[in-house]
Amino acid sequence: MQLISETLEQAVEQLARLPGMGRKSAQRIAMHLLKQNDEQVLRLSKAIADLKKNIRYCSTCFNITDQDPCPICSSEKRNTGVVCVVEEPKDVYVIERTREFNGRYHVLGGVISPLQNVGPDEIRVNELIRRIRDGEGIKELILALNPDAEGEATGYYINKLAQPMGVDVTRIAHGIPMGTDLEFIDDATLTRAFAGRRNF
Amino acid sequence: MQLISETLEQAVEQLARLPGMGRKSAQRIAMHLLKQNDEQVLRLSKAIADLKKNIRYCSTCFNITDQDPCPICSSEKRNTGVVCVVEEPKDVYVIERTREFNGRYHVLGGVISPLQNVGPDEIRVNELIRRIRDGEGIKELILALNPDAEGEATGYYINKLAQPMGVDVTRIAHGIPMGTDLEFIDDATLTRAFAGRRNF
Repeated sequence: MQLISETLEQAVEQLARLPGMGRKSAQRIAMHLLKQNDEQVLRLSKAIADLKKNIRYCSTCFNITDQDPCPICSSEKRNTGVVCVVEEPKDVYVIERTREFNGRYHVLGGVISPLQNVGPDEIRVNELIRRIRDGEGIKELILALNPDAEGEATGYYINKLAQPMGVDVTRIAHGIPMGTDLEFIDDATLTRAFAGRRNF
Repeated sequence: MQLISETLEQAVEQLARLPGMGRKSAQRIAMHLLKQNDEQVLRLSKAIADLKKNIRYCSTCFNITDQDPCPICSSEKRNTGVVCVVEEPKDVYVIERTREFNGRYHVLGGVISPLQNVGPDEIRVNELIRRIRDGEGIKELILALNPDAEGEATGYYINKLAQPMGVDVTRIAHGIPMGTDLEFIDDATLTRAFAGRRNF
């Protein structure tokens, strides 16, 4: 295709790399942006750049945050005795949306997966154990991992370490359809899964 | 929803405003960007900002361009006798993709629409007539407007002005399904529509 505008071509190319985006939708978005005023377009451009500039990881729970510790870990309204263990920051988002959980989080940053060479040391299990030992007052871990082999293995491993330390390890109920990603669960199902959690 | 990261929230909000994007896809894209390296994210951010910084309108054909006159108007390989009249810059893109048309363009920037208070003076019809009069050597106008009432009205108006000036006014064939936007036509149909153009 002949380049009509190098700048436009560059924008389309960059947009087309985003997940769920093809060349046609990238073109449509680029054309849409051309019609917006300067301020609107620069706001989007800046918001994207800020993602890498402003966001860091909370040194307690390893969720993404603008300030460290994150608002959840530094909130006095949250129950410090319960920690919900998730794989990715996006899972925290999904769970917060239900407004059902009032404890803290621990973001593992992955799950144990021998096939992909991810062992317990590659994810933040040791950091979780340290939180239990260092007297944050953790009484219960709620595992909210995806219901697949890796999630099960990771839960099993965490349970093996945490239970002898006197911590109750539960997991959210398998109301979640098997083989689905946590990210795509509707809030109602997720709320029910929280309520129906059982001992590991 | 509780704000976990103001920065992330801002990015999701800005992304969710793009056409064809919901809050969930915006979240997915923001999370994806967080995992990319700085350089990749800044490249996207810059490409978007450049859209408004670098792109202007060609003073001849009013297509969007990085330099004025645009590469098509300043190319010596293009046939200056034939001008394809389109509504929006995106239509130039679609037509260039077929590699079937070797003339120049004229981007009206809209169509005549009494219902939306758009008259001939609100779009670039006068500029088109000036191009014919000022001796660019235009012998044929190919109207590639959408096959709806506004497109028809605009074509009728242009034909009425241009034909007395000795210009052949044709339009691309109605092989295009009625009620569809030019933007979404496949290349093969569009190529055939160009070949089958007939006198207005």
